[in-house]
Amino acid sequence: MTKELPACPVETTLMLISDRWKVLIIRDLLEGTKRFGELKKLVGNISQKVLTANLRSMEETGLLTRKVYPEVPPRVEYTLTETGYSLKPILDAMGEWGTKYKEKSI
Amino acid sequence: MTKELPACPVETTLMLISDRWKVLIIRDLLEGTKRFGELKKLVGNISQKVLTANLRSMEETGLLTRKVYPEVPPRVEYTLTETGYSLKPILDAMGEWGTKYKEKSI
Repeated sequence: MTKELPACPVETTLMLISDRWKVLIIRDLLEGTKRFGELKKLVGNISQKVLTANLRSMEETGLLTRKVYPEVPPRVEYTLTETGYSLKPILDAMGEWGTKYKEKSI
Repeated sequence: MTKELPACPVETTLMLISDRWKVLIIRDLLEGTKRFGELKKLVGNISQKVLTANLRSMEETGLLTRKVYPEVPPRVEYTLTETGYSLKPILDAMGEWGTKYKEKSI
């Protein structure tokens, strides 16, 4: 996978999370493990298909883990890995910046 | 404009800079004022049309200013506003995270 990573580390981070949905999924998983249906409600306005595709891609790049509990119906839970959780300072900084921008825009 | 901003401040920031090109333009303008042609080379793989559209959108949201010098041919320079420059800690954090991710992926 390394050979596909851009030379610039800012681009590397962007490639993994620049997608609007991915950042919102991380925002919601930072609060703790979530089931598929819970995530769908929290992210908002995302189709089941798109959410599934994003979760799979984030599992492949090591940002989260997926655990299936053999119940009927099966329970599927998503949890950030240590790598995914380490994005917290970036999302915190985004939150602070967005708050200030909104205050200035009023 | 305020009424179009999402309730969540992380989403507000994303809406303004989540686009891959916009973040790369900010990365390059953080080093200082750039002419259109310089930016095009630095950002890399971006068409003139797409770069122009992104710069215009970032001018509208107050992230940068555009200054035209009445020369022949006209010189056009782009500079981050204070608001645009205030994104520096987020890009720095993205750079640090990306560096660590790349080290782990080797």
